[in-house]
This record gives sequence, C-alpha cells and structure tokens, in this order.
Amino acid sequence: MYAQGYFDYDSKKSGGITMSHLRFGKSPIKSTYLIDNADFIACHKQEYVNQYDLLQGMKKGGTFLLNTQWMTLEALEEHLPASLKRKIANLGCKFYIINAVDEAQKIGLGSRTNTIMQSAFFKLANVIPIDDAVKYMKEAIVKSYGAKGEDIVKMNYAAVDAGLAGLVEITVPEAWKTAEDKAHKRPGLPSEIPDFISYQVDTINGQKGNTLPSSAFVDGYEDGHFPAGTSKYEKRGVAVNVPEWNGAKCIQCNQCSMVCPHAAIRPFLLNAEEQAVAPEGFGAVDVKAPKLKAAGYKYKMQVDVLDCLGCGNCADICPVKALEMKPSATQTAEIDRWTFAFENVADKNDAGDKFTVQGSQFQRPLFEFSGACAGCGETPYAKLITQLFGSRMIVANATGCSSIWGGSAPSMPYTVNAEGHGPAWGNSLFEDAAEYGMGMKLSLNVMVNYLTSATEALLKMDEVPAEVKDVLKGWLDVHEDGEASVAAAAKVEECLDKLFCCCDDCGGPAQFSDEAMKEFCTLCEYKDYLVKKSVWIIGGDGWGYDIGYGGLDHVLGSGEDVNVLVLDTEVYSNTGTPTAAIAQFAASGKRTRKKDLGRMAMTYGTVYVAQVGMGADKNQLMKALKEAEAHKGPSLIIAYAPCINHGIRAGMGKTQERTKLAVEKGYWHLYRYNPDVVGKNPFTLDSKAPKSFDDVDEFMKQYKEFLLGEVRYSSLKRGFPAIADELFDKNAAEARERYETYKALAEMGAQPVAAK
Amino acid sequence: MYAQGYFDYDSKKSGGITMSHLRFGKSPIKSTYLIDNADFIACHKQEYVNQYDLLQGMKKGGTFLLNTQWMTLEALEEHLPASLKRKIANLGCKFYIINAVDEAQKIGLGSRTNTIMQSAFFKLANVIPIDDAVKYMKEAIVKSYGAKGEDIVKMNYAAVDAGLAGLVEITVPEAWKTAEDKAHKRPGLPSEIPDFISYQVDTINGQKGNTLPSSAFVDGYEDGHFPAGTSKYEKRGVAVNVPEWNGAKCIQCNQCSMVCPHAAIRPFLLNAEEQAVAPEGFGAVDVKAPKLKAAGYKYKMQVDVLDCLGCGNCADICPVKALEMKPSATQTAEIDRWTFAFENVADKNDAGDKFTVQGSQFQRPLFEFSGACAGCGETPYAKLITQLFGSRMIVANATGCSSIWGGSAPSMPYTVNAEGHGPAWGNSLFEDAAEYGMGMKLSLNVMVNYLTSATEALLKMDEVPAEVKDVLKGWLDVHEDGEASVAAAAKVEECLDKLFCCCDDCGGPAQFSDEAMKEFCTLCEYKDYLVKKSVWIIGGDGWGYDIGYGGLDHVLGSGEDVNVLVLDTEVYSNTGTPTAAIAQFAASGKRTRKKDLGRMAMTYGTVYVAQVGMGADKNQLMKALKEAEAHKGPSLIIAYAPCINHGIRAGMGKTQERTKLAVEKGYWHLYRYNPDVVGKNPFTLDSKAPKSFDDVDEFMKQYKEFLLGEVRYSSLKRGFPAIADELFDKNAAEARERYETYKALAEMGAQPVAAK
Repeated sequence: MYAQGYFDYDSKKSGGITMSHLRFGKSPIKSTYLIDNADFIACHKQEYVNQYDLLQGMKKGGTFLLNTQWMTLEALEEHLPASLKRKIANLGCKFYIINAVDEAQKIGLGSRTNTIMQSAFFKLANVIPIDDAVKYMKEAIVKSYGAKGEDIVKMNYAAVDAGLAGLVEITVPEAWKTAEDKAHKRPGLPSEIPDFISYQVDTINGQKGNTLPSSAFVDGYEDGHFPAGTSKYEKRGVAVNVPEWNGAKCIQCNQCSMVCPHAAIRPFLLNAEEQAVAPEGFGAVDVKAPKLKAAGYKYKMQVDVLDCLGCGNCADICPVKALEMKPSATQTAEIDRWTFAFENVADKNDAGDKFTVQGSQFQRPLFEFSGACAGCGETPYAKLITQLFGSRMIVANATGCSSIWGGSAPSMPYTVNAEGHGPAWGNSLFEDAAEYGMGMKLSLNVMVNYLTSATEALLKMDEVPAEVKDVLKGWLDVHEDGEASVAAAAKVEECLDKLFCCCDDCGGPAQFSDEAMKEFCTLCEYKDYLVKKSVWIIGGDGWGYDIGYGGLDHVLGSGEDVNVLVLDTEVYSNTGTPTAAIAQFAASGKRTRKKDLGRMAMTYGTVYVAQVGMGADKNQLMKALKEAEAHKGPSLIIAYAPCINHGIRAGMGKTQERTKLAVEKGYWHLYRYNPDVVGKNPFTLDSKAPKSFDDVDEFMKQYKEFLLGEVRYSSLKRGFPAIADELFDKNAAEARERYETYKALAEMGAQPVAAK
Repeated sequence: MYAQGYFDYDSKKSGGITMSHLRFGKSPIKSTYLIDNADFIACHKQEYVNQYDLLQGMKKGGTFLLNTQWMTLEALEEHLPASLKRKIANLGCKFYIINAVDEAQKIGLGSRTNTIMQSAFFKLANVIPIDDAVKYMKEAIVKSYGAKGEDIVKMNYAAVDAGLAGLVEITVPEAWKTAEDKAHKRPGLPSEIPDFISYQVDTINGQKGNTLPSSAFVDGYEDGHFPAGTSKYEKRGVAVNVPEWNGAKCIQCNQCSMVCPHAAIRPFLLNAEEQAVAPEGFGAVDVKAPKLKAAGYKYKMQVDVLDCLGCGNCADICPVKALEMKPSATQTAEIDRWTFAFENVADKNDAGDKFTVQGSQFQRPLFEFSGACAGCGETPYAKLITQLFGSRMIVANATGCSSIWGGSAPSMPYTVNAEGHGPAWGNSLFEDAAEYGMGMKLSLNVMVNYLTSATEALLKMDEVPAEVKDVLKGWLDVHEDGEASVAAAAKVEECLDKLFCCCDDCGGPAQFSDEAMKEFCTLCEYKDYLVKKSVWIIGGDGWGYDIGYGGLDHVLGSGEDVNVLVLDTEVYSNTGTPTAAIAQFAASGKRTRKKDLGRMAMTYGTVYVAQVGMGADKNQLMKALKEAEAHKGPSLIIAYAPCINHGIRAGMGKTQERTKLAVEKGYWHLYRYNPDVVGKNPFTLDSKAPKSFDDVDEFMKQYKEFLLGEVRYSSLKRGFPAIADELFDKNAAEARERYETYKALAEMGAQPVAAK
C-alpha cells in the first residue's frame, strides 16, 4: 500500500501540538493539500478539547477517538465543550475513548502513550486487517527496541494490547445535537485579557491564524512588532507532575527558582498588606534572611501549575528535598494562589543583592513561560539575565532554539515589569545576530551622543540654574554605568518635568533662551536613552561557533559595548561540536575537535570572556554575568546548556545535574577572562581539575561514563562500534589538553597590559 | 561649465592603461556612452603607438598630442607605425608632440608627467581660455601641494609652463596618407606565438576584446579556462630604469631574484652545450658554489628588460652593489640574451637544496610577469611558492590584488615548466577562497581514495607480479608526502606503461583477471593524482582577516591538508588594519587594534601557523614554507606585504627594506607554530625584540619614525593632528604588548600534546 504523511506543527519545542495528516491507499497518493474530509480523527491530549476545533475537517459518520481520563459519560458530559458535543452528534460520528495515560503508567512506559494510541488507531481506522497490523507493530517493536532489552519490548507489546483492549465506544446522546454553550473560563488565566490576546493571539494559537484578515494588524501593529508578555495568557497546563512545596523544610536558597527553565516557580515576599489579602491556604512562611524578616516580609515559593512543564529540575536541585513532584491534578489549589502572587504581590527589588543566587530570584523574571522543552538547559540563563538587566535590555537574537523559545509568534515570553520596562527583542537572520546587535548598539550610541552633547552645552550656560546643572552633571558622570544610570536618569526626568513640558502646546517657560530650549528639547526627545541600555546578542553554538562566527568575530573586534551569550548545546555539528558526538551533520560521530571559541576571543585582549555552567557553579555564573555586563567593551559568555537532543539517559529533569557532572568529570571548564583586571592575570580558571586527573586510567573511565550518559555519544557505540572507543579517547584527550591549556593560562601571571 | 569624465581601465595594477573620456560644455552632459567623435586625443606613453589603435574615435580634423622622446620628424618617421600615420594624415589631424618625460625629469618631478600633460591639454583642447586655465591650475597646485612645501609648488608651476612651452606642431607629410605597413615585430617576444595569443589575447590586450565573437572561445575554451603562461607574450617594456648586472662583483646569493616581484631577474646555470650556443656578449661567469662548479656550470644573473617594472628592489637588496639601475634604453642588448636564457637554458632542478634562499632561485618560477605594481610586496611570496611546489600546485584565490595580478583575463602569469606542469588556478568570489580550496581538496581526496583502494586491492592479488607490487607499495608508502610522491608516481606510470595500455582500443593483456584489470584501469584513469597535490588558498588581509574569515576559520578547523597564504598589506580597513592607519573604510584612522589572526588559528592546536616577512628574514620564510607544506593538516602563513597603498616615502624600490624595518622596529613579528613538534614548545619566536625595547621612550621614538615613513600613517598627522599622536602611541603600545605575548608563548615550554 501507499502512504502519505504531512505533519503540521506549532513552533513550540517539545510539548507543542502536532497535527498528523495521514493517507493510505492502494494507488500512489499525490494529494498536495491537508485532509479536510477525514475518516478518522484522534485527539491524544484531553486538554485540547477546549483549545482547538478538533473535528474541523471530519467527514459525516467519521470516527473520533479521544485519549482521556474522563472515562464515564458523566465525566464527558461535564468536561467536553458544547461545540465539540454538537459536532460529534450532528456529524453522526462514531465516538471512542481510551485512557492511554493511565494505561501507559501502569505498563511502565511513563508518559509514553504513543504505542497504545497507534494500536488503537489501527483497530479503528481500518487501514489494514487488525491482525496484520498487530503483527507488523510487534515486529517493528523488536526492531526498534530489541537492542534496549527484553523488558522494553515486553512493555511495548503490552501497550499494543492495551490499545486494542482499552477502547470504549460511547453512545452519543441525542441531546448533544443541541448542547448549549456554557461560559467557559480556562483556569488560571490573568484577570484581564487584552483584546490583542483574545482576538489575534488566541486565533493564532487555536491554529486558525490563516483566517485572520490583514486588518487584524493595523492600529499600531503595522511595523510587525508583537507586544511583550503574551505567553502568560497561554496557560498550557501540559505538565503531568508539578512540584509541591514544603515551606517548613525550605531553606529559602531560591536555587529551584533559578534553575526553572519556565519561570514557573518563584519566591514571593509579602508585606503586611499583601499577607492580609492573600487567599485562604496561601501558606507563606517566616522569611529566614534577618534583613527581610526585619522588613516584615513573609516568604512563599509559589508554583505555577499551569505554566510548569513538569521537568523536575527544581526538585532535583533542592538541597533539602523541600520540593516533591506530584500529579498536577493534586495541585489545582495552587492555581489561584499563583494568580494572586503574580498579580498582587509587588516586586521587592531591594530584597538583597541581586547579583547573588538568592537575591537574583527576588527580581521579577522578564522572561517567562516560553515554548522551550521541559528541562531546557538554555532558558534558565536567559531568564536570569532578564532578572539582572531586563528592564534596560535590548536583545538581538540569532535564529535557532533561542529564537523559537525567545519569540515565535504569537507567543512572546519576554515581558515587562510593573513600570512597563522590559527587554526589546528582535531576530533577523540565522547568521547575523552579532551584526544586528552591533547595529542596535551603534544607533544607541548616536542617541546617547545627542544627550551628552545637549547636556554638555547646558552645563556651559549661565542661565541654567545650579540645581539643574547638578542633576545633569550627575547623569553625565554615570551615564555609561548601567546600574547607576537608572537613578540618575530618573532625576533628570523629574527635573525636566518640574522645569517645564517642552511639547508643542506648552512652548516652555520664557526664562530660557532659544539656545537652551533647543538643548532641553533634545533631552526630552531622547529621554528614553538616558538609562544605559544593556545590549545582548543571544544565539546557540550553531550560530556563535559556526554560521555566524564571521560576524561575531567582527563585533568582538569592534570594541563596542555589547554582551554576547552563546548557549552551547554542542548539537550543531560543525566546529562547535566535540569529537565523537553524533549530530545532524556528523551522523557517524564528529571526527575533529571542538573549536575553542573563548580562547580565540581572548586573543583580542579587549574582550571579556567567560565559560559558565549554571548547574556546576551558580556563583561563578553570577560573577561572570556581572563582570560581563559592566565591561565597557564586547563580552562573550559561553554557557553550557544540556539539551533534549543530548538524549540524557537520566531524563530532562537532570539537565542541571548533567552540567555539574560535565565540570566534575573535566568535560566542561569554567573560567573568566577579564580585560578590566590590571596588573594581575586577567584569566581565572574557576573549575578544578577532575579528582581523578592524575590517574589517567581512572579519569578516562569516569569521563567515558559521563559520555555514555547521553545518547549523542552512546549511540556512536551502537552504530559505529569500531571507531567509537577511539573517538571517545580522542574526546577525552582533548578535554585533558584543554584543561591543561587553561591551567597554563591561569599560571601565566600578569599579562602585558592591554593598550587602551 | 559642466564636465563629465569616464575612466576606462585595463585590470593591471599601476602601470596599466587608462583611457579618460572627458566632455565639457555649458549645458548639463548626459551622454551615457564613450566618446567616439573626439575633438582631441592625447597619448601619454609613446610605447602605446604599437599596442593600441590610438585614433579610434577621432573626428576629422581633430587634434592629436603624443608625449614622446622622438622629437624630430625623422624619429617619428622611423617609430610611428604606418597605420597611425595613415590615420593622422587621412583624418586631417593637427598633430603635436611634447617630451614630457625629459621635461619632468629636468624639473625634478621624476616620472610624474601629469601636470605637464594637463597644461598641454588645456592649451590645445581649448576648453576654456588658456590664461584662465593656467590661473586655475596654479591655484589647484597651491591647494594640493601647499602643505608639502614651496619646492613642490614651484616644480609644479614649472610643469604647467613646460606644458605650454614644450608643444611642437608637426606638419604632417602628405606621404603619410599612403604609408605602407612594415613587418613590425615587437622586440623580445618569445620565438613562437600561439594562435590563442595572436588572436584572442592580443585582441583583448589591444582594448578590442568586445569585438571578439563567441566563436573565439570554442575548441577547448568552452569551460571558460584560460591557458597558463600567457603573460610572457606581453613584454610591456614599461620600466624607465632596469638593473644592470656586474658579474664580477656578484656573489651569486640570488637574493635579487628572490625579491623580484616580476620574475624579471633570474640566475641561469649553463652547461657546456648551452655555453657554446650562448649569444655574443652573454656574459656568464664562473659559478662560485663548488658543487655547481664541479658540474661544469657557468652563471648568469639575467635581467629581463621588457618584463621588468623598474622598481629597483633587486639593486637595493644586493649586498655587494652588483646591480645598478640604468635607463632601459641602455640595456636593449640584454633583450635577446634574456630570450636565449629563457628559452634555451634548461632548468637545473637539482642545483642545490631548493629550500634554501640560493637554491630556490635555481628553480624556474611558475609565476612570472604579472600585472602587479612595480615593487609589489605580495608577488615575491607567490613566485617563491611556485618555485618550491609549483609543478604540483592548485590555487584557490580570493578576490583582491592577488586575483588581479594572479589572473585577470587575458593575462595569466601562472605558467608551466618544461614538462608542462604548473599551478592550476581559480578564483571564485571575494569571500569564499577558503571554502573553494577546501572543496578542491575534498575532490582530490576522493581521487586519491580511488587510487589507494585500487592499489591496496592489487597488492592482495596473487596474479600481480612482485616487481609491480614493489612499485605500487613504494607509491602507497609515500603518496601523502609531496616531494617523495613525485618520483614514486613516475615509477607507477612507467610500470603501467610497460605492463599495458588500458585504453579501449588495446583492451589490456590477457594475463590479468577482470578484477585486476578493473583496478589497473582505475590507476590509469586517475594517474594525474598519483603525485600529491599541494593545495594553496591565497588571499589578502581583506579576505583572510575579514570578509572571508568565517570560511577560513571553518577550513582551519576542518583538519584538511591545505595551505593558506594571507598576503597582509593591512590596507583593508577593518579587523586586519592596525590602529591609526588610514584606509578605505577608516578614513580618519583605525581606532581599534589589529586582530591577531595567527594566535586565533593557534588555538586549534592542529594548525601550522607562521608569520613571515621576506625582507626581514628569508631563511625563516623558507623554513616556514617548507614546514607548512609538509604539515598534514591546515597551514596558515601570514606574510607581511608592503604595498603601493602604504605610500612608502622611500618609494616602491624599498618594499623589502620596509619589511626589514617593520621587524627591526617591532612593528611586525616573525614566528612559527608547528603542531608537528612533539615534546617541545611548538611555538618559536623568530624575530628579536627591537634593540630599544627596554628603553620605552627610545622605542616609541623609533617606532613612530617607522610609522611616519608611510603616508597611510603620516597623513593622519596632517588630517587629524589632534588624535594622531594618541593613536600612534596606541599602535606602538599594542605592538609592544603583542611582542610580549609572543615572548610569553615562546617561554611556555612544551605544550599539552595535541590529541591526534
């Protein structure tokens, strides 16, 4: 038989929707359009009943299969929306349900429902005789999983059987034909829904974006921008398990919040007024930090049940087991508590030094609820950076994962704080993020030049009052210092407001000459640029090491004050991929060594360079981010980021742990090269040699154990056993060499002073 | 008045032809075509009378001005070709001559005839009243040269006057109307002129390429290739002075030959037979090297008068003043001597170690008579490389100067040796030379794989005779060794020839099985690849540091066995340009430091890297070239190349001297990083610290003196005096820092061993 498949995705990473359009037939299939007259439609996720028009394109009398835990007619009556009921009934559908979620759990397959649903599909869709289908499926299971052991094969056999046995046909009630719509409010949504969300965003997220007319994008959206902070209206609720917080055990270190890839667990500090209006059972506890206690705060580590993806890194990182992963259904009480905390508990921005692990988490993340995979190793870095610099941040993003979780329409996870300030974000091409960001920086330079020129001119004028000059001088002195410029800019704005409004209507008071007014007007016109902007260029290793490296090198050589974050998953398979790893363009294992991007950047002598790994050393990461942003020139931060494509055997709940192991086993190295250090060695090696470094055999053994913890390496052993060990040895030898090179750099002592 | 100018060039560097199409008028000029009905035509170079159709486009009764040293009617009768005479007479031209060459010399302007010719133009062309023209010209002289001093202004004033006074009107003889063509053979041309030269090449060089029909490029040229070695038919004869060799003084070090940018001075070794047929007065002397003397050779350093561009670097480099620059006209006797040596004296390839300065020059350069500027600092490197590896060389060239002197149609300076072997050369885009060369290398790898697979198969077959196996095994053992592969390949070819011809007609002897014949046929089919090819990727700093760096970095990271030559003139003005230098994109002086391309490449640990400077240390250069080519992986050679765009105050006869000073004053550093060194430091710093290094003030003083020897730096002082000293200081400080960094690298001792 012939088969045709077309798979229609949203642009979420794992956890998004896929619509599979499948055709089968005895003659070749040449249909170049999606299926709009389906014999069979299955929905594998019960949450979708409220989100999508599931039976769009179903033919009359077709078969509908729903994977659900609502296994009674009563439950279906309660949960299915009226629109779906009407369609099922009026189309005369045959309606089946199956509880593949619980079945898979029982069998031992965890959340993997695919085999069960496949078997149910063959039973109902009637493509080939079901006995043949079962035979073929079981043969395929042996082929796919045989090498993984008898247990896996048996579990999948059981899943095939469960897919046949578990089907329940529902006799569709006549009343469904005229089911009446009930007001349905999806739980946990913010209390106010902007028109842009309920119209444009929901339509696009409902997979009906093509129906939007161009008139949906006028009235301010003609330039193609999307508003910030739209991801908070999604409330996808896709986690099977979410963390439950035990306030009594919690030591309030805030590490769980820092490592969360989804900004779905956050510490809140409640003052007395907030405590008074907190919902029943909110469960805030005494804050432990004396200074915060003295301020009268209470503490709650609040889980966001509907935005959590259930990866479990928070629970894994908790040093005191104060978090435990529990089925989402048991945690619904936290939904409204989250909404309260999120909307009604004010930011306590002065709660501790934000450049510490704990303090950083009391800053509102301006990056939240992205479409990243559960457990993503990249997003915790982006989120942390927004907590430190987000309110004055501009991002030029390369194309790649970071542009998908960073902003794929209509979802915008970069958001704003209570004052409406947050990162401005753009993505141009795959390869030009560095140039794009440098262009942004150059345009900022022009604006700031207008401001400094105007300020300098005013400072020279006798007519300008001394107190105004003090304020202007105060700003001029610190305008290149990110943190200090914020307060100084506020004073300038306040001063200008007091002096006059220089709009056309007002005209400005007559006490100033035309010359002075001209300069004051410049200050007003460009006041958005009084605060020093923090320019970030963000991309993956495919961009930074490879496709975009030519441009990145130029920007590093330019001397401009920009910050570059390379999220290094190593899974683009050219120069940035290590020896022996399997990746898209290196299917039989990469043969050449990984390039040392950081050391290349160091040759400029003027570039701040750091290699970091959140799971390995959060304090080193905090230092690096602080130094990089403060450096008045280009900075490059290379961040180790475990990825779903690594095939981490321990699962995506261990991404932080993998980074820790990578450093402990000598796979990844932490360092900082700070050109601002004078008279000392600018290079600091922050990670130690692996414990077994001097015992080469033991080192190699442990190193290879580390490698084999990831499918990107272990599959080389299966697919290319002859060369696998040789390449693993080479990878390990290169890692040793790299460490020794860094050690030699660290021991070089003071470097020749970079000419300014 | 309105003016329009269009300037039509050939693609030679300085010394090429420019045709200026000028229009003047009282109303706006919108003519979008070349002038084909000229009132006035001037020819500024008398050599052109035989090369171009000078009066093409002249209107009847127009004025023709010739700058010439043939200042009598008799001389004109003798030298002007009949075709020109007929045109002058039949068009009824007014014909003027002027001797601007001698006048300029007299005035003190050297070879600068432009002001004289400009003045003559205004006198004859009658664009504006001549008194006004003189006034404006003199005002312009003050504006242009005022800052250079009173003397320069006076000399140019004198030139204006000379242009008016020196004009001589020639009464055109009636007989010219019917002047008869004489067989004219331009002197010094090779004895045989291929059809391709006399038709296609001469037509294009005669500025009539547009008249060639497409049928001129069939019969083997459909693929767009041009034959090698076409530049030797140009014999441009543009040098004012050429070197005269004094055989008695000469110590036969061959340095003059090595530094010649044009391959126009070469040592020839004559055996007894060659001595016997040498032309009268050939002047070969006893050879000094005992081994060569014993072989019975005589020695002649032969000057090529018509291909020399007269730069004088040869005379400048001569340690014993055995070369003296003399007017070309005094050296015409050498023209035929050159032709004899070039055509009749065989290559003595075994005359000494070719990897020495002296020995290298007994190898025939396979790069000669390019369109480079007189004194070019780049071409001596390219020429030397062809002397070492040319017969098995493939070049992927970036766009830039090296692609202009390297091969701009119809001129191809890369040529072949007596066996017909020479570099294959290609140029793709500006930026992709590295990728282009890597592609060539990958395709070579495939061919060589065919050969090694066939060889290995044959070695396993009992039917293959032992003596054949010995030859095949001999090749297999050394096939990756450039030098050794040449002899081994010759033996394989000889062996195959003896065994059989495997063409279709022959069918091969029956003693071999089909299996064996298949492998033998593979050897025959790919026998061109038995010799290991030497792949070179050549470009300038604009390509290597900048536009093409992304690709270059990939290729360096690939591990492929290619050799990269970056000709570093520093005059592309982005990352490759040093602080304070003025260049096209850095008109007010470059503000950021020059990137350290070599040190970036060293971070791979697997790339051979060298910085060289021919004028500073020829032996170090020879070592670097030998090691780089032998390294079985990527090699990068960064060669300092003085350039006409440096504005060298001492003139282009001092390009070698400038490189020497650059190293002595600490501006440029020589080093080699050889990954093949095991157990020792792979980095060798080959240049010493400047003598004044420890006395910082003295160092800075001398360093700045060096900078001010070039207009690219000194003009910063004139144009931007406020920042010039600061930027010079920065440049000097960076150079000190660079030296100290290299010194630290050199002192690091053995490096961690690169994992293979």
